[in-house]
Amino acid sequence: MTAACELCEESGGEILFRNEQLRVVLVADANYPGFCRVIWNAHVKEMTDLAIEDRSTLMRAVCQVEAALREVMQPEKINLACLGNMVPHLHWHLIPRFSDDAHFPHPVWAPAVRQTVDGVLSHRRALLPALRAAVTRHVSCAS
Amino acid sequence: MTAACELCEESGGEILFRNEQLRVVLVADANYPGFCRVIWNAHVKEMTDLAIEDRSTLMRAVCQVEAALREVMQPEKINLACLGNMVPHLHWHLIPRFSDDAHFPHPVWAPAVRQTVDGVLSHRRALLPALRAAVTRHVSCAS
Repeated sequence: MTAACELCEESGGEILFRNEQLRVVLVADANYPGFCRVIWNAHVKEMTDLAIEDRSTLMRAVCQVEAALREVMQPEKINLACLGNMVPHLHWHLIPRFSDDAHFPHPVWAPAVRQTVDGVLSHRRALLPALRAAVTRHVSCAS
Repeated sequence: MTAACELCEESGGEILFRNEQLRVVLVADANYPGFCRVIWNAHVKEMTDLAIEDRSTLMRAVCQVEAALREVMQPEKINLACLGNMVPHLHWHLIPRFSDDAHFPHPVWAPAVRQTVDGVLSHRRALLPALRAAVTRHVSCAS
């Protein structure tokens, strides 16, 4: 644990899966239902700070969550990113992208180009119970 | 090869390494000397469209390029991203980030917050010959 690191001190979202090495959380983002993060529990900064077998474990979990997102939400594209400029504690963003989302085809960190209509967002939010179940199933099976 | 896919038709940058499965290219970005991409040669859309052993091969190359970037450029942080909303052909962005770069601590796709001074960018560009050599050495050794 590192003082003043929010991913050491807090879960980072609604926990869908957790073991000794990592956790998967669902992020509360009004524009991006299904936005998940895979967070390495220990305070490590970069992928190459991990032992090679731990990199594989982490990426396997990222791919398992990607599979769950595709199965349940059927997005146009999956976006994966490991940034950590503000919180240098190893974590992956997994964002299901749709052609009508707020930033498509730009990254979610670019300025928004539209407001997705409420009915569409409500429909996607209604998939979250199925997504929670799918993430737990995919990640638990192989870890 | 898929018609009208720019990563099927073009290299995507200056090739630093290429084998049958993937290539590593250096991107010409005035604000981000050292910006590299690891591109899967075949037209595949998502990480989970790859066989598991191919995902490992690709991420091993990403980590080898990350190691080369850290060794030569000593950035504040490495940013990794697999987006592909505009070009849905599997590729990874690897961006060495510095506290004085145009967007730090925000992602490079957010609005710029400063202009890095020319002398600093020139110093980073002067590291590119060493980066080319390091990428070739890191990726060739273990693939």
